[in-house]
Amino acid sequence: MTNIITPKSVSALDFTKLDGLVAAVVQDANTKRVLMVGFMNHAAIVATIETGYVVFYSRSRNTLWLKGESSGHRLAVRGITTDCDRDSLLISVEVLGPGVCHEGYESCFVRELRGDEWVVTETQTFQPDDVYAK
Amino acid sequence: MTNIITPKSVSALDFTKLDGLVAAVVQDANTKRVLMVGFMNHAAIVATIETGYVVFYSRSRNTLWLKGESSGHRLAVRGITTDCDRDSLLISVEVLGPGVCHEGYESCFVRELRGDEWVVTETQTFQPDDVYAK
Repeated sequence: MTNIITPKSVSALDFTKLDGLVAAVVQDANTKRVLMVGFMNHAAIVATIETGYVVFYSRSRNTLWLKGESSGHRLAVRGITTDCDRDSLLISVEVLGPGVCHEGYESCFVRELRGDEWVVTETQTFQPDDVYAK
Repeated sequence: MTNIITPKSVSALDFTKLDGLVAAVVQDANTKRVLMVGFMNHAAIVATIETGYVVFYSRSRNTLWLKGESSGHRLAVRGITTDCDRDSLLISVEVLGPGVCHEGYESCFVRELRGDEWVVTETQTFQPDDVYAK
């Protein structure tokens, strides 16, 4: 852990409701499609702001996670907004690559509720094996 | 608590990461604007599906919360998708009213990061006192 000076904009967020995290919704700046939801702690937000690329906090691996680190499909930040409760972020991005989902889709949200079934409603935009194989 | 039979589509979601909740992103079906982020438990999702209006779980009040109950600005569900991890929902809605934010804006996401400041970048679409006064 380096000596990061937390910007006051980051300190102004409410991290209390999710044990040190805020929800971060990623939206394509051009198509307005919602691509994914992740979580960020203080350090992930600072890293996102400083690098200009979306960095999440991985709850399962307990570490910062540069989105696209393996696949190359990074998310270039175009804008960040927060909500009235300051406990969620909406991050407008340009996607560097054909998609964000580790299953090979443009968006992680491809399962639509039809009746009582979750149905995948679109086709893959890339083959996961091609980008995660290494 | 009534005897709700949980649909298998709801049981298929992963509630373990947020202590019984999933994040729910609400997006305007027409404009594609992201309006708000809330949280749902099993019962909130079942109520949302059954009534056709967005019902959240209020973490602060520990109860189900029909969005728009006070203001009348309910959210009519047009579609529900889940993501690859099945721990988040994206709900496409038609907004019944001029906005969803308790502060009087169309969206809760009106504070944009500019430098190190969160700046409100738009004007109110309604006066909160008019709809929450009763």
